Amino acid sequence: MATDLLHRRHKLLGEQAPLFYQEPLHIVKGEGVWLYDADGKRYLDVYNNVPNVGHCHPKVVAALSDQAATLNIHSRYLHDTILDYGEQLLATMDSSLEMLFLCCTGSEANELALRMARKFTGKQGVICSNASYHGNTTAVDALATLFNNGQPNGPHVEAVDYPNEYRPLQGLQGQALIDAHLQQIRIAITKLESQGSGFAGVLFCPLLANEGLPNTPPGYMQQMADLVHYHGGLLIFDEVQAGFGRSGSMWGHQNVGVTPDIMSLGKPMGNGHPIAATICRRDIGEFFRAEVMYFNTFGGNPVSCAAGKAVLDVFEEENLLNNVLNIATYLRTACLSLAEQYSLIGDVRNRGLFFALELVEDPVTKTPASQASQFIVNAMKAEGVLISNIGEHGHILKIRPPICFSKENADQLVHCLGHCLQLWQAQQHRGT
Amino acid sequence: MATDLLHRRHKLLGEQAPLFYQEPLHIVKGEGVWLYDADGKRYLDVYNNVPNVGHCHPKVVAALSDQAATLNIHSRYLHDTILDYGEQLLATMDSSLEMLFLCCTGSEANELALRMARKFTGKQGVICSNASYHGNTTAVDALATLFNNGQPNGPHVEAVDYPNEYRPLQGLQGQALIDAHLQQIRIAITKLESQGSGFAGVLFCPLLANEGLPNTPPGYMQQMADLVHYHGGLLIFDEVQAGFGRSGSMWGHQNVGVTPDIMSLGKPMGNGHPIAATICRRDIGEFFRAEVMYFNTFGGNPVSCAAGKAVLDVFEEENLLNNVLNIATYLRTACLSLAEQYSLIGDVRNRGLFFALELVEDPVTKTPASQASQFIVNAMKAEGVLISNIGEHGHILKIRPPICFSKENADQLVHCLGHCLQLWQAQQHRGT
Repeated sequence: MATDLLHRRHKLLGEQAPLFYQEPLHIVKGEGVWLYDADGKRYLDVYNNVPNVGHCHPKVVAALSDQAATLNIHSRYLHDTILDYGEQLLATMDSSLEMLFLCCTGSEANELALRMARKFTGKQGVICSNASYHGNTTAVDALATLFNNGQPNGPHVEAVDYPNEYRPLQGLQGQALIDAHLQQIRIAITKLESQGSGFAGVLFCPLLANEGLPNTPPGYMQQMADLVHYHGGLLIFDEVQAGFGRSGSMWGHQNVGVTPDIMSLGKPMGNGHPIAATICRRDIGEFFRAEVMYFNTFGGNPVSCAAGKAVLDVFEEENLLNNVLNIATYLRTACLSLAEQYSLIGDVRNRGLFFALELVEDPVTKTPASQASQFIVNAMKAEGVLISNIGEHGHILKIRPPICFSKENADQLVHCLGHCLQLWQAQQHRGT
Repeated sequence: MATDLLHRRHKLLGEQAPLFYQEPLHIVKGEGVWLYDADGKRYLDVYNNVPNVGHCHPKVVAALSDQAATLNIHSRYLHDTILDYGEQLLATMDSSLEMLFLCCTGSEANELALRMARKFTGKQGVICSNASYHGNTTAVDALATLFNNGQPNGPHVEAVDYPNEYRPLQGLQGQALIDAHLQQIRIAITKLESQGSGFAGVLFCPLLANEGLPNTPPGYMQQMADLVHYHGGLLIFDEVQAGFGRSGSMWGHQNVGVTPDIMSLGKPMGNGHPIAATICRRDIGEFFRAEVMYFNTFGGNPVSCAAGKAVLDVFEEENLLNNVLNIATYLRTACLSLAEQYSLIGDVRNRGLFFALELVEDPVTKTPASQASQFIVNAMKAEGVLISNIGEHGHILKIRPPICFSKENADQLVHCLGHCLQLWQAQQHRGT
């Protein structure tokens, strides 16, 4: 059956269409933190951040279904839901973020953020990190340094090293480390200006999620923002992964204590329904509206807004932000304890319920343990727990469950992870 | 109430966020060909092509709701629905169109089409018409000549005049008119090559919908395709408006008798649900997959595919293609009869249930009657019939109902249109 599906898939979508795991999963059902395959096997989902409030949450499904049965239309007519939802959403963030542009995907949201920043500043040049991915359109793909050996993938882009206390530039610490990174940004700005691109701004994920969730030296984000503004640029935060409570704050930028000029939202916004947004300062939004006829056929339709609103409602009703903080603390303690047992775990980092466990062959050399990471992800899947890996070398375990994750779920995860670390260790010993 | 909504909307989305009609409509419900406002007033929808099989079609709503309650996840696990849907979709088109890339919006579909064409040919240059719009991302917006006085809006793009038998270049006809337009394409290719962009292909809507649905001289599309291929370019058809039976053929390219190398789909694909696609030849798709890590988080999720599949099922079960042909013939006769009564109607054109009535101040000078068009669109709305206008001067009435449109619906439309033409005429006489 799975073989037949795989054959049909290769023909229709191409052999290279991204697929998870050495033996792909055939998933047929989702509920809360659980996914079920075609054989009825149950998997604890510790990967998917899109179904943020839980797979197929009945309240979100009901809101979506009711609105789909009532009206689904573009936003060129007046409608209550887009306004009710938008106002509720913006009330959760700094009052300087006043204007909302609804679209359908994180790529579209980052596209729009770039278009806004470039129109508003009249400049083209953008700075990103050297292990970033922000989406799949031409302009956004120019920033996909993660898949291009750290190099920009198009014009008007410069990449800088991301700060990382676990692997600090030249072994620097604290303010010295910050200064080294700020200096890289200064150099990139000068380069963009001397090339004629000018400097429009910086686009970062506030948690540096695709970079592997590094701990940055305290003060870096604020000083970086100040530097960007000093040079006339805008600060764009990609909150596609960081937003909606993931970090233990409602927004990633609140977690790092810096309000951006423009931010993009996506993935968990509709718990799986294609809805995304770009949110910005009023002066930027009004300037863009006056200059550009921006319209998005599906963006802001009542069904998308009803789904988005239900997600926010569930978030509050189930006190999920509090749950993130509680479970994150519990899970962090357990992961640190595993790290004491297994030197393979070089670093345990987390922002709320987004954990990165960096695997290294040796705690001193810190050589990325990419093979071990692959092994563990696949072994855990075999044992019914779904996680993934990130980072330039794919050696960082990515643990990012729906945020309705419970203590019992955390126990199962830790137990399974411990067992798979043991399996890897045993295999290594047999090999030597 | 509407005033309050408008005030909130201006604050949240900006005063310049696109809105229909001089007095915006507050729509709360949709059913079949009908829309209802907050006061319970019913409008015949003769504008919206997205809810193609009818607003809130129960079968589509049920498919969407059932799947949303069962599983909604990305396409990196195996799933039946994406394959069942994709195979059913591709079975409706030429067998050379073998590979499917699912995304969420027409903009994303055209983005991907451009990325594919550029990767596959290794060239950057693209030719579009001088009154085109294909979406809102940076690369696609470079082709938005409709909002930029006929000029490209970014690098690597050349615009050519679109063929139009009603307003032919230099008064030419038949093959001479074709030759003049092919010559423009040759010149554009030479220009792209001499600038160093090279020639990647042509991106056209096969019906030239945003251009105002001009009648093109028979043979033009095939000769244009041959010329493009001769120069090593690819033919990309934007079927976002042309597809799904609108033209009386399942696909716009079948309607014009030319199979593209790459095509994009969007708007009516999920009857309002955000689903879109790029479809291409196998060699192009496999080349792109091998070169580029393309992934779209929401693209091809089971809910989107269930909605898309239900649309195809309804299409067949209700024999909607046949309905398009029947009603189009009926409506065309009625519109031609109105055109005999009112010299304001300079030209009646249609492709299936997409009608363009070009309004002119004088049948000889053919001066665009933009004011009359504005008046009629708003007057018809007041009488409960929703249409819109298109074209560089906004002087072409755009008539494009859900394709479940009946004879009775067509009668109401024609009656209302006749009355509003009369109102305009009376107002003009009073004015003189």
